[in-house]
Amino acid sequence: MQQTERHTRTETDSMGAIEVPADRYWGAQTQRSIENFPIGVERFTWQAPMIRALGILKKAAAQANVELGEVPAELGNLIVRAADEVIEGRLDRHFPLVVFQTGSGTQSNMNANEVISNRAIELAGGVPGSKNPVHPNDHVNRGQSSNDTFPTAMHIAVVEQMHRRLFPAVSRLRDTLAAKAEANRELVKVGRTHLQDATPITLGQEIGAWVAQLDFGLASVRAALPGVYDLAIGGTAVGTGLNAHPKFGERAAHHIAELTGYPFRSADNKFFALAAHDALVNVSASLRTLAGGLMKMANDVRWLASGPRNGIGELTIPENEPGSSIMPGKVNPTQCEAMTMVCVQVFGNDAAVAFAGSQGNFQLNVFKPVMVHNVLESIELLADACLAFHDHCAVGIEPNRERIRENLDKNLMLVTALNRHIGYDRAAQIAKKAHHEGTTLREAALALGYLTSEQYEQWISPVEMTRP
Amino acid sequence: MQQTERHTRTETDSMGAIEVPADRYWGAQTQRSIENFPIGVERFTWQAPMIRALGILKKAAAQANVELGEVPAELGNLIVRAADEVIEGRLDRHFPLVVFQTGSGTQSNMNANEVISNRAIELAGGVPGSKNPVHPNDHVNRGQSSNDTFPTAMHIAVVEQMHRRLFPAVSRLRDTLAAKAEANRELVKVGRTHLQDATPITLGQEIGAWVAQLDFGLASVRAALPGVYDLAIGGTAVGTGLNAHPKFGERAAHHIAELTGYPFRSADNKFFALAAHDALVNVSASLRTLAGGLMKMANDVRWLASGPRNGIGELTIPENEPGSSIMPGKVNPTQCEAMTMVCVQVFGNDAAVAFAGSQGNFQLNVFKPVMVHNVLESIELLADACLAFHDHCAVGIEPNRERIRENLDKNLMLVTALNRHIGYDRAAQIAKKAHHEGTTLREAALALGYLTSEQYEQWISPVEMTRP
Amino acid sequence: MQQTERHTRTETDSMGAIEVPADRYWGAQTQRSIENFPIGVERFTWQAPMIRALGILKKAAAQANVELGEVPAELGNLIVRAADEVIEGRLDRHFPLVVFQTGSGTQSNMNANEVISNRAIELAGGVPGSKNPVHPNDHVNRGQSSNDTFPTAMHIAVVEQMHRRLFPAVSRLRDTLAAKAEANRELVKVGRTHLQDATPITLGQEIGAWVAQLDFGLASVRAALPGVYDLAIGGTAVGTGLNAHPKFGERAAHHIAELTGYPFRSADNKFFALAAHDALVNVSASLRTLAGGLMKMANDVRWLASGPRNGIGELTIPENEPGSSIMPGKVNPTQCEAMTMVCVQVFGNDAAVAFAGSQGNFQLNVFKPVMVHNVLESIELLADACLAFHDHCAVGIEPNRERIRENLDKNLMLVTALNRHIGYDRAAQIAKKAHHEGTTLREAALALGYLTSEQYEQWISPVEMTRP
Amino acid sequence: MQQTERHTRTETDSMGAIEVPADRYWGAQTQRSIENFPIGVERFTWQAPMIRALGILKKAAAQANVELGEVPAELGNLIVRAADEVIEGRLDRHFPLVVFQTGSGTQSNMNANEVISNRAIELAGGVPGSKNPVHPNDHVNRGQSSNDTFPTAMHIAVVEQMHRRLFPAVSRLRDTLAAKAEANRELVKVGRTHLQDATPITLGQEIGAWVAQLDFGLASVRAALPGVYDLAIGGTAVGTGLNAHPKFGERAAHHIAELTGYPFRSADNKFFALAAHDALVNVSASLRTLAGGLMKMANDVRWLASGPRNGIGELTIPENEPGSSIMPGKVNPTQCEAMTMVCVQVFGNDAAVAFAGSQGNFQLNVFKPVMVHNVLESIELLADACLAFHDHCAVGIEPNRERIRENLDKNLMLVTALNRHIGYDRAAQIAKKAHHEGTTLREAALALGYLTSEQYEQWISPVEMTRP
Repeated sequence: MQQTERHTRTETDSMGAIEVPADRYWGAQTQRSIENFPIGVERFTWQAPMIRALGILKKAAAQANVELGEVPAELGNLIVRAADEVIEGRLDRHFPLVVFQTGSGTQSNMNANEVISNRAIELAGGVPGSKNPVHPNDHVNRGQSSNDTFPTAMHIAVVEQMHRRLFPAVSRLRDTLAAKAEANRELVKVGRTHLQDATPITLGQEIGAWVAQLDFGLASVRAALPGVYDLAIGGTAVGTGLNAHPKFGERAAHHIAELTGYPFRSADNKFFALAAHDALVNVSASLRTLAGGLMKMANDVRWLASGPRNGIGELTIPENEPGSSIMPGKVNPTQCEAMTMVCVQVFGNDAAVAFAGSQGNFQLNVFKPVMVHNVLESIELLADACLAFHDHCAVGIEPNRERIRENLDKNLMLVTALNRHIGYDRAAQIAKKAHHEGTTLREAALALGYLTSEQYEQWISPVEMTRP
Repeated sequence: MQQTERHTRTETDSMGAIEVPADRYWGAQTQRSIENFPIGVERFTWQAPMIRALGILKKAAAQANVELGEVPAELGNLIVRAADEVIEGRLDRHFPLVVFQTGSGTQSNMNANEVISNRAIELAGGVPGSKNPVHPNDHVNRGQSSNDTFPTAMHIAVVEQMHRRLFPAVSRLRDTLAAKAEANRELVKVGRTHLQDATPITLGQEIGAWVAQLDFGLASVRAALPGVYDLAIGGTAVGTGLNAHPKFGERAAHHIAELTGYPFRSADNKFFALAAHDALVNVSASLRTLAGGLMKMANDVRWLASGPRNGIGELTIPENEPGSSIMPGKVNPTQCEAMTMVCVQVFGNDAAVAFAGSQGNFQLNVFKPVMVHNVLESIELLADACLAFHDHCAVGIEPNRERIRENLDKNLMLVTALNRHIGYDRAAQIAKKAHHEGTTLREAALALGYLTSEQYEQWISPVEMTRP
Repeated sequence: MQQTERHTRTETDSMGAIEVPADRYWGAQTQRSIENFPIGVERFTWQAPMIRALGILKKAAAQANVELGEVPAELGNLIVRAADEVIEGRLDRHFPLVVFQTGSGTQSNMNANEVISNRAIELAGGVPGSKNPVHPNDHVNRGQSSNDTFPTAMHIAVVEQMHRRLFPAVSRLRDTLAAKAEANRELVKVGRTHLQDATPITLGQEIGAWVAQLDFGLASVRAALPGVYDLAIGGTAVGTGLNAHPKFGERAAHHIAELTGYPFRSADNKFFALAAHDALVNVSASLRTLAGGLMKMANDVRWLASGPRNGIGELTIPENEPGSSIMPGKVNPTQCEAMTMVCVQVFGNDAAVAFAGSQGNFQLNVFKPVMVHNVLESIELLADACLAFHDHCAVGIEPNRERIRENLDKNLMLVTALNRHIGYDRAAQIAKKAHHEGTTLREAALALGYLTSEQYEQWISPVEMTRP
Repeated sequence: MQQTERHTRTETDSMGAIEVPADRYWGAQTQRSIENFPIGVERFTWQAPMIRALGILKKAAAQANVELGEVPAELGNLIVRAADEVIEGRLDRHFPLVVFQTGSGTQSNMNANEVISNRAIELAGGVPGSKNPVHPNDHVNRGQSSNDTFPTAMHIAVVEQMHRRLFPAVSRLRDTLAAKAEANRELVKVGRTHLQDATPITLGQEIGAWVAQLDFGLASVRAALPGVYDLAIGGTAVGTGLNAHPKFGERAAHHIAELTGYPFRSADNKFFALAAHDALVNVSASLRTLAGGLMKMANDVRWLASGPRNGIGELTIPENEPGSSIMPGKVNPTQCEAMTMVCVQVFGNDAAVAFAGSQGNFQLNVFKPVMVHNVLESIELLADACLAFHDHCAVGIEPNRERIRENLDKNLMLVTALNRHIGYDRAAQIAKKAHHEGTTLREAALALGYLTSEQYEQWISPVEMTRP
């Protein structure tokens, strides 16, 4: 928008006139929202994913409306051109609103309508604010209500962020860990249960369990997506589709699917699609499951790398920065700490999402913005944390072979292999004797006379104990 | 077990001898647990589902061990007979332990081993506590560890309760609501968004949204089940399967599937199956989603039935009890309140499950008992609450037709139907004028001269407004 | 109550007649509730603390009503005698109702009214169910509503359980840990931050931090009590005190304080006292804080006791039971695990309480039963877990002096003492050299030439490093 | 900092050299953190409150160190001058780090050390990056560790935001509501319990309950502050105070109190002050309690203002914006919605804080940044939301007297006043008769013959029913 002489221009809505900055495309309702909701402005202004999603939605809606004869092709094309600029992120600074506004996201829907309308008017050579030839409600919002557009944009944003950000990041970490598991598939080490020494495993098995858990987490997230592919669009104000062409929802969903490449579809029950957002609750829960797995992995890594001399010390991890401002030479598992903090945040975000999801009334849930905000934040944080952890920790995880061997040799739980030969009770006696007397298992076993030295050698093989 | 002269008998384990009640089958380790964990005894003693699940597991394990030549058929049959009694609930009083014990459930696994061993010994004419001919560890627990048996029993219990309790109860409620939706599919009423009057819907559409939400919740729970069909059995102590026959896990899972009729299978990665219980975290989250839907439905019901004279009053619900100890004649939506309290509890339980699920270390998560406890409690409460709500509320929900008609007639949001004919801005003017002057829409519309009386009749049809 | 020929007797309320078991004191409304709310019956039937609290409340109310001339002394005395039996726990089996009922607890209030009425009638030689001479509403519930009595009983129950159960149990654990801290105040050991070796502390300092945290947690709980001393009694149905003598609330609160010995008082704002239970939310939060501290302590204990050979192993804890059903001789930190599971449950319970607390509408919060249930459960579990942990773990915690010394000697972070003498950067060089070359600090320090052997001895004193 | 020819300059730390932007004061460790932790950069970069708090801390530390002879006065003064610039917000752009970094906040502590060091060097005419004459570790961080400085800064930031942001905002809302309560103290209206019509109250009493709840919430937050006044400073790396002057903690705390005007003090147990942040957990919980109260208030407002024609409609609230993009003339309770969304977010944030607080190990809790981030965010959101709600809703809340009177007249629960005269059972009969026959109470009462018309007039007075 061209800078004009005046610093503001007058925009109007059903409540009257209001001045807006001359160099912004937004209109009266956006301006009112800026003034009415100065809440968390520095951190809660909508970011690119939701703005882009609104652009995609408005473009698809215009395409559908033109097809169905609801909007003249000429106007539709103007809307599409303006929406394309929104999609490309060129108009981000014209979206000043925050999460904590109307619970239906009405003002962000109107923000999109107003920006696209004014930009389209500009493209047509008209006067911004004139609503002519492109009216924000009658044309851009044609056949729509915030109640169906905003949740549709929520779904678009979540799906896109999931595919663009989360899946590649988690997969990258997962693949590197899988390679580490493979590289260490034969490295036998002590297992630990209840934090206590247990029967042996290989490091490959240990890391492989993290991989399996990440796979499960990723599968959980993917399993939650079908609900998000279902779109509210077409339900308009209360789910009946009033004022929309009967085929509008289906056509708009079709175009959204085309524009994004994801299998969006028109939801079967539009009333449910407006009144509740259980699909997002499920997505949030699946992100929590994934976060739980990442937390366990990160905790394992830092414990296994604990030390360097007074901890477990079986893994070494990269030294990325000085660890301490007071203890010289200290190296800390900082990527693990960043990761576990992110996981804790995802748990908190999920609590907010589920709470919000339970608070709908009648035909509308009015916690839409806070729900999508938290889901998007969780996606972003998990993606970023996985990449940082990958680049600055996972790739550099290496076994401390000396320590691993040393620990394994001391491990009393090798005694478990004797159960099959001398029974649980006698095996227990051996372990207890060795523990209390500080001797080796072999010494205790022979002293008790339950087996011969040859039998000990034959029966107790750490390598064998790791194989099915 | 026969009452003996002595009140106790001596049982032994690897820590030595201990007296147990003579009329109970349990052994030394169970007795130690009773004494060591007097925590929440009145409310947290394991109930039938987990005891039965342990019975199923031990039976299947014995069958598998016999097949694989790990346990002699004779002993295996004794174990099976004793396990059958556990499954049938005949030995419930021999399971005295509580949730808050060892985090691997070791003591409950040993409780099962000891009870089955002693009952099997009794069946064989032996001396309880002699471990002869059936040893609790070497035979009943053959090829097993608490670390794989207890999570296997967790999965069995959850799946059985899901199918036996939850699905029938929720479905029953769902079906009755679906019938109510069908019965009221043509009853036009005011819609409400933001708690404010909105465009019309039918009562059938309103109730149908609850049905769709319950369907979504049920589908979410069902979608979480496959993870629970994967069993840890065969992993033994750390996931390697040490001391179990290589085919034991698969055979045991096969028998569990046969005994229960559900598609249980041996988990692909046993290390993950011991170290994390993300499948239960997912189940818990899906129960939370279902609870969120039930909460929304119950809240809608009580708001729609609010009054009788100063609320919305569009629904009537059964009067089941006097509502107030001080206000005579008051009738309260008590089933809604019980339901919403259950939902809140399910949210709390889920928070505990997810927290617990994140706290595993190395080869074991030691929050197993508290996880399964909360999942089972949520299942039970949701099932009970759905049945109570069904019987004492849902079946009796009826529209208050007079109030519905009266409300609809006053509804200013019928004006929305004019958008397509006179545009949003003029329609808004009409609604505001009627609102501020307290007149009807028609009066305001005609006064503003935007349409004729005939057009008003033609364009504003509440029934039409509910149709796509 | 005497067993009669008939198995039931007829009781009536404003909805009509209903049969109740002849050998139970409860009346029509209790019976209706049994039938209407079969939800979680095995685990959610009210336990002694709430029943006793209702008894105390009804006794105090009768005393107040007699004083104020609202109930004849003769009837008041009968009520007091019956209430005394409730307080003493002699009528517990006459309280069959569950948590998930009316959200105001109306039915449990009526249960108390009915049982006390019928028992008082019996004491007077009357006919149970006749409501003569003692009417459950007009006399026992005189000047009361469920809306003020039930939250009053909630507060009584919570305060009593806090003082009787929680404080002694936590204090006991705290005192034993304080004694352990004192006993080990000079035992120098390695400190750990980020799970990494850090500068030395004494074991007394380490344990002392747990004590300080428990003290903080206890103080937090105590700080939450004043809100619970404020009682709703006197507010009746909506807070106005309708139908109660103007001095009733104050007098009843006075008697409750006398009967219990705790400083209960009449709440300043009765409307708030009915419509929200933020005092309980605060109590729940304080229990969560305490649980957080217990969790940290229990986690520290099990990590410090990890091993026996491949962990940290600086503490030994009692061996209470065989640790594993498959690994002979294994000893696990089972009390720590029970404690951390309890803590996780307390977190979940708190989530339920806070959620419930936010859901009030107008003059009433109808999540009262689920709120008090969770608070009472958290109190009970924390108390039980502290005692079990005390008896079976804390008392037996002992330092493994050999391991502590060995670890300390290896600790590179002793280098920190050199900062003041040679600067952070040179100290860091020394530590890194020792770490990468696997040498001692002294060797690295001397090799780098930054200090002499004498200076090393003088500057690096682990004991001195633990002193301010 | 002057723009130099080169775009970067070389900074060093114990890991070596690294290039940093020439126009930024930060050093090597900050630069490493930027590169290692690209996590949520757009939204999680530390904001003014924490930067300012670090400035206050570093200034106070320098003052203390000079007093105690640990740092030469000349250097101390340079540090103070540079720190003052940090405090004043003039160097905010030199603090680029994010929340998700090392869990001790080490890198943000070093960021402060580096920026102050380089700015002090510049003030002294030295070469940035030379560490001469002011070394970031040896001088700015003198006697400090991240482990005690960062939690100290956390406490400073929280206390300042609490006093500067939260208390004024909540108090403003509270006072306006109190004035509304006073203005409507005599306006009698229907009370509501269980969403059902109940005995009358005045609007002043209804609003007064919100005020009482906000007062309780505010008092809860204030009650949590003393724990936050206790500062970790002086504990250095593990709580022993190694490398700090024995009086450093006390002196630094004294200066912090002087600089801020709040009663900060040196914590009694420094080990606890590093290893756990239960004081912040308590603060977070108190914010949750406050949020619960705000949620209840906002929900009441929107329900009481529901309608305009088909809801309760007893209050009118300001029309701030067009309510709907499709329904012309609709006005929605948007400030209530923003407020309840904020409350939900505060609940989620609190869940994250408490979870993080439970995860400390040994001498350190490494979830410090995520804890303070969430507490600060909750403070900011609650403050902003209270002000927005105040300005755009609370000030304009007005009773709809006509609707209030109409509702009151219909209210059947006026019958409760008859309990004292004719007993609960007969009063119930009257209410039920009126309800089922759709008549007035008076008609039903007279028809049943339980009282005369004169008695009805005398006994049933809504105004009297609202008075104690």
